[in-house]
Amino acid sequence: VIVLFTNYGENRMQGRKSIITLTTDFGTKDPFAGIVKGVILGINPEAVIVDLAHEVAPQNVLQGAFVLMAGSRWFPQGTVHMAVVDPGVGGKRRPIVIETNTGFFVGPDNGVLSWAVNNTDTSKIVEIKNPAYMNRTISSTFHGRDIFATVSAHLSNGLSISELGPQIDDPVTIQFPKPEQTEGEIHGEVVYIDHFGNLVTNIELPKGSPVNQVVIGKMKITRISKSYDEGRSGELLAIVGSTGYLEISVNLKNAQQEIGARIGQNVLVRL
Amino acid sequence: VIVLFTNYGENRMQGRKSIITLTTDFGTKDPFAGIVKGVILGINPEAVIVDLAHEVAPQNVLQGAFVLMAGSRWFPQGTVHMAVVDPGVGGKRRPIVIETNTGFFVGPDNGVLSWAVNNTDTSKIVEIKNPAYMNRTISSTFHGRDIFATVSAHLSNGLSISELGPQIDDPVTIQFPKPEQTEGEIHGEVVYIDHFGNLVTNIELPKGSPVNQVVIGKMKITRISKSYDEGRSGELLAIVGSTGYLEISVNLKNAQQEIGARIGQNVLVRL
Amino acid sequence: VIVLFTNYGENRMQGRKSIITLTTDFGTKDPFAGIVKGVILGINPEAVIVDLAHEVAPQNVLQGAFVLMAGSRWFPQGTVHMAVVDPGVGGKRRPIVIETNTGFFVGPDNGVLSWAVNNTDTSKIVEIKNPAYMNRTISSTFHGRDIFATVSAHLSNGLSISELGPQIDDPVTIQFPKPEQTEGEIHGEVVYIDHFGNLVTNIELPKGSPVNQVVIGKMKITRISKSYDEGRSGELLAIVGSTGYLEISVNLKNAQQEIGARIGQNVLVRL
Repeated sequence: VIVLFTNYGENRMQGRKSIITLTTDFGTKDPFAGIVKGVILGINPEAVIVDLAHEVAPQNVLQGAFVLMAGSRWFPQGTVHMAVVDPGVGGKRRPIVIETNTGFFVGPDNGVLSWAVNNTDTSKIVEIKNPAYMNRTISSTFHGRDIFATVSAHLSNGLSISELGPQIDDPVTIQFPKPEQTEGEIHGEVVYIDHFGNLVTNIELPKGSPVNQVVIGKMKITRISKSYDEGRSGELLAIVGSTGYLEISVNLKNAQQEIGARIGQNVLVRL
Repeated sequence: VIVLFTNYGENRMQGRKSIITLTTDFGTKDPFAGIVKGVILGINPEAVIVDLAHEVAPQNVLQGAFVLMAGSRWFPQGTVHMAVVDPGVGGKRRPIVIETNTGFFVGPDNGVLSWAVNNTDTSKIVEIKNPAYMNRTISSTFHGRDIFATVSAHLSNGLSISELGPQIDDPVTIQFPKPEQTEGEIHGEVVYIDHFGNLVTNIELPKGSPVNQVVIGKMKITRISKSYDEGRSGELLAIVGSTGYLEISVNLKNAQQEIGARIGQNVLVRL
Repeated sequence: VIVLFTNYGENRMQGRKSIITLTTDFGTKDPFAGIVKGVILGINPEAVIVDLAHEVAPQNVLQGAFVLMAGSRWFPQGTVHMAVVDPGVGGKRRPIVIETNTGFFVGPDNGVLSWAVNNTDTSKIVEIKNPAYMNRTISSTFHGRDIFATVSAHLSNGLSISELGPQIDDPVTIQFPKPEQTEGEIHGEVVYIDHFGNLVTNIELPKGSPVNQVVIGKMKITRISKSYDEGRSGELLAIVGSTGYLEISVNLKNAQQEIGARIGQNVLVRL
């Protein structure tokens, strides 16, 4: 008796079930994100492809870095995270892969990957050079399709990153803006503004030190709320957001519109 | 010799192939929807996740209820429908699951689920209380990630809703606005406006009673069209839309822009 | 000896793993695209559904044709491509399927499919008439749900297109605008503008003939760039884009906004 079967999609080099996330500035009007998926599925028909966001502002590497950092940490170990916000496409910037204890990060070497790998153990970084894992023809304007999609798909098939090219140790990194802490004060800034208009800061509140005041522009908030609905409709709130950072919100309204805030704006916490 | 093995992904507690739909006001700029998917796939790698809509206007529970009602009915029996339009997140509103003969409805107890279950047989409603089926840390601002995603994933794995918490019988419901019918007249209203600008009303035309006139604002329409292209370009049409309700449209144009309509606007049908 | 197993998802009529792409003007605010997916998954639970784009401008058949052409070619052979930009829904236009050596193209017979099949070998075209492969009730406003989704799902299950209806040989086609070439000059036009504001033309540069000048409106560009970052920030560039056609771009900015271009605008290449 010979029972011969292929355990569909498990533990094979080709067609392995694994997750690939996409973070891009491609938008959704054009077929760009769909094309990336077509290329991936041609190499790994079992890939589970998840959009993290395609609405990063065009060429805004910082915003892409934030979205990838905030999103990638919620995916299972081994996930392949492809991020393409790539103003230097076709030029001298290197295409790279960073392997960490959480998964793989694939994209241009312009810092877009750097915040996501900040709190991980990085085991290896390579420059993608091996044409065997790229499309046959490489355009100078769409490496998302011709290099990053193919490499992500091959990684999801179980390819070792050593096959992709030489190891490097000098990737471009963007410093995540650190708040300054003086006695009794934390000086931070707005680092991201979400779809609801919530202002995400770079401030993590110290445990055990009650907050006296949060100041943004001319507005002062005198306590940290536990939930949005503690405030009256339209009231300015300070709250620890879902990323763990302090956020400024307006109950049932859009804080960005209400107080005219912008990325980089100073936020002061008085303990 | 009998070799009997489990058909990949079917009838297992862990990793069962089943559908989870998402209806939210998260938008697509931020990684929120992607994070929800990462959490789900960490619990059920076989889940098939379908976006119903993430563009519900922020905190607009009525719009979310309509989208969920209109969309959920087209999915196979047993689908898990997660809807998160949740201005009360982190406050006192309960997280709930409604099990019906069509599937599972997971979300905050603020009425967002209520229209979708109107024409189903509800077998059980529970308040989600069991921390075993939530994230280890529960934020006060993102229950979509910390409670509803995890619960939806476990339900898709075959978990009985009884495991989630105590049964309740007093969920918050929103009344679907019913048209008033007097002799020869139906007084309804616009309940939804779609992407094309079509005005969806709450009026179902009675069979066998020919329509004499449809009135909206100062505009009068004297017949029910069978298709958009019966009208000249720019002509105002009354048509039975894909939801079964009477809709006001403008051929090849946007009715909302053309006639300045809004949700709640009166629509009169003279039979 | 009884060996009993179902090879999950492979080579079965029902529930075959295959790809269905969606190109529509449905937008993402309403549950329309999600409903199409629900209908498909009810017929083929193994279908892998990929959004090419749902942001085609309402009823813009030309834009839909371009998106489908540019996107569909990057998918594996056998993919089912469903395109619904359908101002004539419910009227006299025929629902059709085109089978080619690359896959299946499903949609209204208004030309939206015609550019995508231009460079393929078409083996057969049928008018969809068999109600066995449609929803039980056919609305007059949402054939995407009631006809095209069901047909696409059945095709992904392996159905022969001959089962769908009679063969036809007169599908509506839209001529792709061809550039005019005179001695030393190519007269083309802008045929698509992408999310980044890049102006995609219908001009393919002849090999071996160096370009002397590219003229759009009052702007002149004197060379073909190899990548965006060859230009200074804000500089107007001519570049061979990812579709293979000449594109006009502005480094790090939006060319459409910078120079006020529109679809159909003349572009002249002097060799």
